[in-house]
Amino acid sequence: MSTEPTVDFSHIESAAERLAGEANRTPVMTSRTLDQITGCRVFLKCENFQRAGAFKFRGAYNAMSRLNADEKAAGVVTHSSGNHAQATALAGRLLDVRVTVAMPLDAPAVKRKATEGYGAEVVTYDPATEVREEVTEALRAGRGLVLIPPFDHPHVIAGQGTAALELMDAVRDGAGDAAGDGRGVELEAMLAPCGGGGLLSGTAIACKSRLPGARVIGVEPEGSDCGNRAFHGGAIARVSHPQTMADGLKSHALGGHTFAAIREHVDQMVTVSEDEIRDTLRFLWERMKLVVEPSGAVGLAPLFHRKLGLEGRAVGVIISGGNADVGAVAEWLGEAAVSLGE
Amino acid sequence: MSTEPTVDFSHIESAAERLAGEANRTPVMTSRTLDQITGCRVFLKCENFQRAGAFKFRGAYNAMSRLNADEKAAGVVTHSSGNHAQATALAGRLLDVRVTVAMPLDAPAVKRKATEGYGAEVVTYDPATEVREEVTEALRAGRGLVLIPPFDHPHVIAGQGTAALELMDAVRDGAGDAAGDGRGVELEAMLAPCGGGGLLSGTAIACKSRLPGARVIGVEPEGSDCGNRAFHGGAIARVSHPQTMADGLKSHALGGHTFAAIREHVDQMVTVSEDEIRDTLRFLWERMKLVVEPSGAVGLAPLFHRKLGLEGRAVGVIISGGNADVGAVAEWLGEAAVSLGE
Repeated sequence: MSTEPTVDFSHIESAAERLAGEANRTPVMTSRTLDQITGCRVFLKCENFQRAGAFKFRGAYNAMSRLNADEKAAGVVTHSSGNHAQATALAGRLLDVRVTVAMPLDAPAVKRKATEGYGAEVVTYDPATEVREEVTEALRAGRGLVLIPPFDHPHVIAGQGTAALELMDAVRDGAGDAAGDGRGVELEAMLAPCGGGGLLSGTAIACKSRLPGARVIGVEPEGSDCGNRAFHGGAIARVSHPQTMADGLKSHALGGHTFAAIREHVDQMVTVSEDEIRDTLRFLWERMKLVVEPSGAVGLAPLFHRKLGLEGRAVGVIISGGNADVGAVAEWLGEAAVSLGE
Repeated sequence: MSTEPTVDFSHIESAAERLAGEANRTPVMTSRTLDQITGCRVFLKCENFQRAGAFKFRGAYNAMSRLNADEKAAGVVTHSSGNHAQATALAGRLLDVRVTVAMPLDAPAVKRKATEGYGAEVVTYDPATEVREEVTEALRAGRGLVLIPPFDHPHVIAGQGTAALELMDAVRDGAGDAAGDGRGVELEAMLAPCGGGGLLSGTAIACKSRLPGARVIGVEPEGSDCGNRAFHGGAIARVSHPQTMADGLKSHALGGHTFAAIREHVDQMVTVSEDEIRDTLRFLWERMKLVVEPSGAVGLAPLFHRKLGLEGRAVGVIISGGNADVGAVAEWLGEAAVSLGE
C-alpha cells in the first residue's frame, strides 16, 4: 500500500472537465448571522445540492467515466449503505454502466430503494457474519466486475477535489456576495469533514495547489476519529466501532491514498462533539434554511464554536451532503422552533 | 377604497434601488427531477433565503425606508403573528426605527421571541374579544405611530415585486443553468402564492411590465381562497375562517390596492389542495434540500401536479419563505424518508 501522494492538481482539473455539465456546480451560500457567530467571512459550498444529494457523485462519476469500453461493459461493484451507493448508481445510469452494490441487510429500506431507483442491483449481506470487503471482492471476482471503492482511489479523490476547486473559483469571482458589490476574496482557510478521507484529500490537494498559503483543516466527530488518530499518530489507525449521528463519517480507517494525501497536504485535524454537531446542524436548518445531513454539518462545527482561532479570516467550508431523514433530524434537534434566517 | 392600480413598474425599480445591499439577492434554484416531474423548465426564486426568512423583508424595508424623519422618529406599528412581524422588526433595527407589533395572545412563543429578538415591542391582544385592526389602530392613534400594513400598501407591494424582477433578470442571465452552458432564457409564465395579495400584486406588475407576454398565475390553498373569490367574482370577497397548513396565506380578504393590481395584471387564479401542498413541500425538502414553509410550496404546487398545461415552458415560481417549524413539518410529511436529490 503506497503512502506517497498519488493524486495531484492536474488530476482534479481533469476531473473538473469530465464533470462539467454532469455534476451540479453547487451554490456557495453565506449568512450575515453566521459571520457574526464565527467572527469570520464564511463561504459554504453546498454539496447537499449535488446530484444524488452529496459530493459523492463527483468521485463516482469521475472514476466510472474513466473506465475503458471493456470495463464499462463488465459493470462495477461497490459497497456502501449510504451516499456512495446512490452516487455510483446514478453515475452508472448516466454512463450506461451496470452497478452492483453490496449493502448490509439492516440498511434502511429507503436507502436501498433509492439506490435501486437509479437502476442498480443491491446484493445484501449479513454484517454479523460477513465482512463487506469480502462480499464485495467475491462479487468482483465472481462476476468479473470493476471495483469503485468509496474513497481510497485516485480518481475518486480527484473527483471529490472539484468541489473545493469550484468553491475557490466562485469566492474569488464574488460568490456569496450578499451585499451586491461584486468583490471577490481569496480564501484563507478551508474546512472539510473526514470519513475515509476522500473529500478531505481532494479538498487539500486542490486548496494547496491553488492557494498554498491557505490553511486546510479536517474535521471528525469525536466518536469516529480515525483520521485524527492517523494524522497525529503518523500511521493508519483503526476505529472498530465508530459512534456518531454523522453516519456518513463512520469509517474504520483511512486508506493508503487518503492517508498519504492528508499527511502531505492537511495542516490540522480536529474533532467535534455530538452537541457541537447538533448546534451547527440546527443553525443550518433553522436559520440558513438548508436541509443538511448530520455529516454535512461537521466541517462547519469547529468554526461555529470558534475553536480554531480563525476570526477575521475568509473561510471556505464543504457542506458535504443533504440526504437527511427529516423525521430523525427533527427529533434530534429537539424542541421544534420557528426561526429566522437573517 | 381605490380599485385602480396604484403601483407601477417604476415603483418596483425604485424599490430595487433601495433594497440593493440590504435585501439578499436570493438564489434561483433548479432541478432536473423537478423539470421531469413538471414537464417545464422551472426556476425557483428562493425567498426562504431572504433576510428574516421570507420575501416580507422586501416590502417592509421599502416602506419604512421611505418614511420622513418625523415618521421615523415616531416609530411604526403593524399587526402580524408571522413573517411580516419579523420582517418589520428587522427593517426597524436596520433603519433605526422603533417597531411595535400587535400579536394575538396565542401566537407561538417562538414567533414572539423572534420578533422581540430583532428589537421590536410586542403588544398582545385576545383574538377572542379584540379585532386586530382595532388594536393596531388604537396603538397607532394613541402612540402617534405610522402603520406599516402587511400587504395593502403601495410601497409594500412595490418592495415585494423586486423578487420577480430579480428572478426575470437572473434567468435571462443564465441563472439555474445546471448544465453550465451559460445560456439564459425568458420566462413564459410566473407563479406566486396569494395571501393578502402583496407578493402576487408586485410579481404581476413586474412581470407584465418586463415580459408582457408571460402568463401570471396566483395560487391559493383551497381552504383560504379569498383571492380566487375576488378574481372570479369581480369584487373583494371575505373568507371568515381560512383553513390550511399554509399559515402564511390565511388571509380574510384582499385589500383595495392588491385587488386592483391582481384584477389588472394577473391572468389566472387557481387553488391547490392540502395534499398537493404537502407533496410539493416534501419534494422541496427531501429532493431539493430546501427548508421551505408550507406557504412557500403553494406557488409550485399546481405546476408540480401538472394542473396548468404549461408543459414545455420556462416558468418562474416564487418560493415565498422558509420559517418552518421543523418538527411540525416532519410530522406533516409523515413517514420519514431518506431521499435523493438528483
